[in-house]
Amino acid sequence: MRAGPSQEEVRRQNLGALLRYVHVHGATTRTELTSTLGLNRSTIGALTADLAAAGLVREGAPRETGRAGRPSLVVRPESDRVYAYALSIGVDQLRAARVGLGGRLLDQRGMTRPRGLGIVETVPLLAAFVKEMHESVPLDSVYVGGGVAVAGMVRREDGMVRLSPNTGWSDEPVADVLSAQLGWDRPFAVGNVADLSALAEHVRGVAVDSDNLIYVYGDVGIGAGIIAGGRPLSGHGGYGGEVGHMAVNPAGQRCGCGSRGCWESEIGEHALLRAAGRERLSGPDAVLTVVDAAARGDAMAQAAVRQVGDWLGFGVANLVNIFNPDTVIFGGTLRHVYIASAAQVRSRLNAMALAACREHVRLRTPKLGDDAALLGAAELAFEQLLSDPLDAAP
Amino acid sequence: MRAGPSQEEVRRQNLGALLRYVHVHGATTRTELTSTLGLNRSTIGALTADLAAAGLVREGAPRETGRAGRPSLVVRPESDRVYAYALSIGVDQLRAARVGLGGRLLDQRGMTRPRGLGIVETVPLLAAFVKEMHESVPLDSVYVGGGVAVAGMVRREDGMVRLSPNTGWSDEPVADVLSAQLGWDRPFAVGNVADLSALAEHVRGVAVDSDNLIYVYGDVGIGAGIIAGGRPLSGHGGYGGEVGHMAVNPAGQRCGCGSRGCWESEIGEHALLRAAGRERLSGPDAVLTVVDAAARGDAMAQAAVRQVGDWLGFGVANLVNIFNPDTVIFGGTLRHVYIASAAQVRSRLNAMALAACREHVRLRTPKLGDDAALLGAAELAFEQLLSDPLDAAP
Repeated sequence: MRAGPSQEEVRRQNLGALLRYVHVHGATTRTELTSTLGLNRSTIGALTADLAAAGLVREGAPRETGRAGRPSLVVRPESDRVYAYALSIGVDQLRAARVGLGGRLLDQRGMTRPRGLGIVETVPLLAAFVKEMHESVPLDSVYVGGGVAVAGMVRREDGMVRLSPNTGWSDEPVADVLSAQLGWDRPFAVGNVADLSALAEHVRGVAVDSDNLIYVYGDVGIGAGIIAGGRPLSGHGGYGGEVGHMAVNPAGQRCGCGSRGCWESEIGEHALLRAAGRERLSGPDAVLTVVDAAARGDAMAQAAVRQVGDWLGFGVANLVNIFNPDTVIFGGTLRHVYIASAAQVRSRLNAMALAACREHVRLRTPKLGDDAALLGAAELAFEQLLSDPLDAAP
Repeated sequence: MRAGPSQEEVRRQNLGALLRYVHVHGATTRTELTSTLGLNRSTIGALTADLAAAGLVREGAPRETGRAGRPSLVVRPESDRVYAYALSIGVDQLRAARVGLGGRLLDQRGMTRPRGLGIVETVPLLAAFVKEMHESVPLDSVYVGGGVAVAGMVRREDGMVRLSPNTGWSDEPVADVLSAQLGWDRPFAVGNVADLSALAEHVRGVAVDSDNLIYVYGDVGIGAGIIAGGRPLSGHGGYGGEVGHMAVNPAGQRCGCGSRGCWESEIGEHALLRAAGRERLSGPDAVLTVVDAAARGDAMAQAAVRQVGDWLGFGVANLVNIFNPDTVIFGGTLRHVYIASAAQVRSRLNAMALAACREHVRLRTPKLGDDAALLGAAELAFEQLLSDPLDAAP
């Protein structure tokens, strides 16, 4: 029950709205800003001047439009100057990027992460990437913050990684360790990889026109990033979206979490490899091998893909009934599994989801691919700047 | 991406915030309003004067506080004067109430609903209740709108009841039929009974301090009202929360929705009565008889309650993993089933929900009892007035 804002708060809100608009949409004419934000030309002019003075946007002539008349000036985010560091700790990959305002990847590093590598060994590798990229940052650049995507449960309050069963971590203060390694004051914000992938696809990916989306991310583990009514669903502590531990099969396998028949046990990497008779293998390449073998007609691989696809559809139908989303996105290695088993998924959805809940739902693969987690981590890092540009600008 | 509001919008926002505060909290001192809303005394005075002139609040001396010094004036909602009609179409009950601003039940009517009664027969009964109550409304009263809670899936856009399997309705324009019966212009807002019960318990019930709650409502059917991050989760079309059709038992019974092993088939009225060997009975009284028999030591009833309680906990564990709520409320006849089987529910929750997701969750019974749906329907009716008091006041 907040009261309306003061004059100064309104100005800050307007600055944030304008900066966020060009951050999301890129170069935008003053005319479009005027109509989209519902402010008059002189207000847009004043706001743009303030943001330009702070080095966050610049104005310039548009590209040639071919139309007659004086063209409207174009406002662009300072993507080459204003940047964040975005890191991602996946089960199999470590990645780091320097991301410019507007979501431009300016620089990046990455390596395969050997499964089982602890936080003590992981964080220095990421810190080294950051230091390396930092050396070639142009002199007049402005660092606004950092974000980390982690394949684990992240406490919203302080970014503590509570549990990351598939990296083997529990109660790890990743952001603190990272800041200590770098010797930087400004803390890194931490989020879950599925949550941040959902955010990125919502801001600049396949779900920009969607306000109710579920991004199901899968590799060894399964988790979802959920956006409901246009806002990320985080839950009380920040742990919402643990759909991998929705029990779907009371007669199913024991799950690593201690329960039985979790969705993760039926559709995760192990389930596919086991069904395909390749339980000794692991990792995304092994999953791809099964999907490829199925495409080439290998009967056992086909049966495995069908079985996992059937359970994939089973769980998606549940989520469609619970959330009534307009978009479901399949990311991580689930992307490949979904493409190979779309018929099973659709069939389960039709049989199990209520007509009203599924009538507008679109099943999609990510537009941003594996960059989604990094771009989402960058959004986390930019958030403070976008909420209050002049206060947060260093 | 909205720009900040104009001066006039800020005033309207402030009027709404003040009115909403006294609507929710009742009589409030000017001092408390000043500090809670973060506005200065003169602004609070001006806003109160505007709302009082519109007949929405009144100021007066507080009750004797026993403290020295001049007491702060108290602002009260005009509960006896400003009112809404709230209706509820349950599987077994039809109810109608006149509800004053501030959530006070001023008048009410109700009757048992014979199962199978169609919309053509139901709506005139409700309209008759409204007409009857309307005759004794004091002359200077102000009607602000009406709301209807329906045990069915309600399209957000226009209040169309898409499917109400347990009343046997499909695609029924309840609000239109009701308005036509009454000959009133002002349309009734329609919502799902679980959604509105959740809203009421959030605004003035057991979950006022909870921003992430799940209200599981059960009778023949099972549905949930979900509030995530302080806002109702409605989904793309308004159908979110159909947790009764989350499949939990692939080997389970065929469900009325066409799927198999839905949560509803395992914990709904039929499941309990079947397990207790009383499948010929139906209705809330039959459910209570089983719960009572179990309490008295009837072995078959005890086994039935344990079995249903076990499945109740199974589904709640799934919802806790998916939403990370701080509060789960059991309403309708599930209230009694939950109380009788709390040990099974808690045991499943401990075995199946992730520690981080469940560590802060409280399991609760409703504070508002069966009035929750009516009070929620009233909230729906008051919403426009609370968003923009002077524009919406008639």
